[in-house]
Amino acid sequence: LKRRAVLGERRIIRTILEQLDQMPDMPIPFGDDVSAYSLGNDQVAVLKTDMLVGRTDIPRTMTLRQAARKAVVMNISDFAAKGVRPLALMTSLGLPRGLGERDIEQIGRGLNSGARQYGTYIVGGDTGEASDLIISVSVFGTTEKTSIMLRSGAQPGDMVAVTGPFGETAAGLRILSEDQRKPGRTWKTLVRSVLMPQARLREGLALSRTGAVTASIDSSDGLAWSLHEIARASKVGFLIDKLPTSEEARVFAQENKLDPAILTLYGGEEYELVLTIRPRQWQEARRAAAGVNCNLVPIGKATAEKHVVLNIEGRTSRIKAKGYEHFKRS
Amino acid sequence: LKRRAVLGERRIIRTILEQLDQMPDMPIPFGDDVSAYSLGNDQVAVLKTDMLVGRTDIPRTMTLRQAARKAVVMNISDFAAKGVRPLALMTSLGLPRGLGERDIEQIGRGLNSGARQYGTYIVGGDTGEASDLIISVSVFGTTEKTSIMLRSGAQPGDMVAVTGPFGETAAGLRILSEDQRKPGRTWKTLVRSVLMPQARLREGLALSRTGAVTASIDSSDGLAWSLHEIARASKVGFLIDKLPTSEEARVFAQENKLDPAILTLYGGEEYELVLTIRPRQWQEARRAAAGVNCNLVPIGKATAEKHVVLNIEGRTSRIKAKGYEHFKRS
Repeated sequence: LKRRAVLGERRIIRTILEQLDQMPDMPIPFGDDVSAYSLGNDQVAVLKTDMLVGRTDIPRTMTLRQAARKAVVMNISDFAAKGVRPLALMTSLGLPRGLGERDIEQIGRGLNSGARQYGTYIVGGDTGEASDLIISVSVFGTTEKTSIMLRSGAQPGDMVAVTGPFGETAAGLRILSEDQRKPGRTWKTLVRSVLMPQARLREGLALSRTGAVTASIDSSDGLAWSLHEIARASKVGFLIDKLPTSEEARVFAQENKLDPAILTLYGGEEYELVLTIRPRQWQEARRAAAGVNCNLVPIGKATAEKHVVLNIEGRTSRIKAKGYEHFKRS
Repeated sequence: LKRRAVLGERRIIRTILEQLDQMPDMPIPFGDDVSAYSLGNDQVAVLKTDMLVGRTDIPRTMTLRQAARKAVVMNISDFAAKGVRPLALMTSLGLPRGLGERDIEQIGRGLNSGARQYGTYIVGGDTGEASDLIISVSVFGTTEKTSIMLRSGAQPGDMVAVTGPFGETAAGLRILSEDQRKPGRTWKTLVRSVLMPQARLREGLALSRTGAVTASIDSSDGLAWSLHEIARASKVGFLIDKLPTSEEARVFAQENKLDPAILTLYGGEEYELVLTIRPRQWQEARRAAAGVNCNLVPIGKATAEKHVVLNIEGRTSRIKAKGYEHFKRS
């Protein structure tokens, strides 16, 4: 299971960035979900690459087909968050020696089903030997520079909204990692949220077209982390007054004596979009989401004060800038 | 050290390809060195991704900085072979826990120096934890579709040429893997060819502009393998009548009682270009190469008969479709 030390990762990225000469006039600054290259006439090529690593990112009960599909979905999700259509995918595979022909087949099928689900194709790639299974995926797309939903545009007063419920993957990962084989009636939905994640591509594309969105990110590192990322990039804070907890996650929390707020805020490996929206364009954004069968859920407001605060039933607390740490092993 | 089982790799790629729906009108078929996406008006986006894996691809004496640089160079080399200028690079890193801040710094420096040497930049990427060091690099470029030098255009009668000498990396890898610490006077050049590989980007771009090249590939899997790949993709054979053995490799072979032909043909991790050229445009190609300080070396001819044959001093033998197998461990 993925137990990314998110804070450690940020320091690593900073260290690497310090060594890099920066391309002049980069259309998207370092640190957003995707990168871009200017093609002229306001058009940009949009690029993304991220890898799935066997031992750290793939739960034991996930099939190779699901793992390969997920490697595609997590990359597509970043395009979704930016409102960019993926046009072509590349893959680079590191394969342990023990894999057989059937395993390779399953990896191919997973890659293809992820690509086709989001209307694109695998157009090439490379394979080599590795001690751990590595599925690296790269995405290419093009768009108008001004249409990209960055992390950095949120303004105080903007509404904060999400494209769906949270907490399912936090519960599902817990079920999978603790091998709870006799959990309650919500088991299937929760486990499925981990094994068959869905990128919110149609939602991201529809919302991008409205021009109502001021900032956007996917929630792959959890809702709390996503809010902090937008806050940091946009130099705002958030006052969250509604937790978008999934009904199934709420039942799971109750059955297992867990705090549903923790599952909702500090999960991860979920691919909802977290967006800020101009208040006067809220209805427009909501309608655009509804047009692709998405119920856009308002959860709070951006604030000038740079704290990320939860205010539920009159009780106020800080939302911490953390992802998985409560699950962290070793 | 890299000990890729090249034939096994081809079977793996075929198995994966069988699972993939193919994008209609792909500008470059599966199996060439790069992939492409049509942007309209004969323009294509060119994409490549490949990874370096710590335990299998990085000799023990290679520094992290050299390894990161090499991960860039091997990807740029594929663009060089196709005559396409790389415009932007992405990287995805899998980092073992043991790495410290200095190690990360060295990786960042290597990535940057590789990018800057070839006139481009790292524009983004991602990092995560992995049990083995993984440095995955993706390259983006654009070009006119018709200008791409594919593997598949060689015609019987075309001249075969290479951009430089062969055998140095085969010797260098041998020195590094056998920890020969007291080899002859050629040691530095040979080891350097492994640790600091050079992509023939200027050469590839200059040759592409002539329109004289009918097929091209880089020699990362060795000269023999490269010839067989062009032969297979172009449905031709080759009669090779000159072996472009490096002077240093020849001395090393003599000192170590090795066959220089084996070092020349069946090495790898070298990044010269192997090209076929229309005979009537040979002088044009040669001049273009000379313009970027490259001595284009003719080594034989493409033939209608589909064998890859070596004919030196009246003795004829088959060139085998193999890369590293004679070095293979385990």
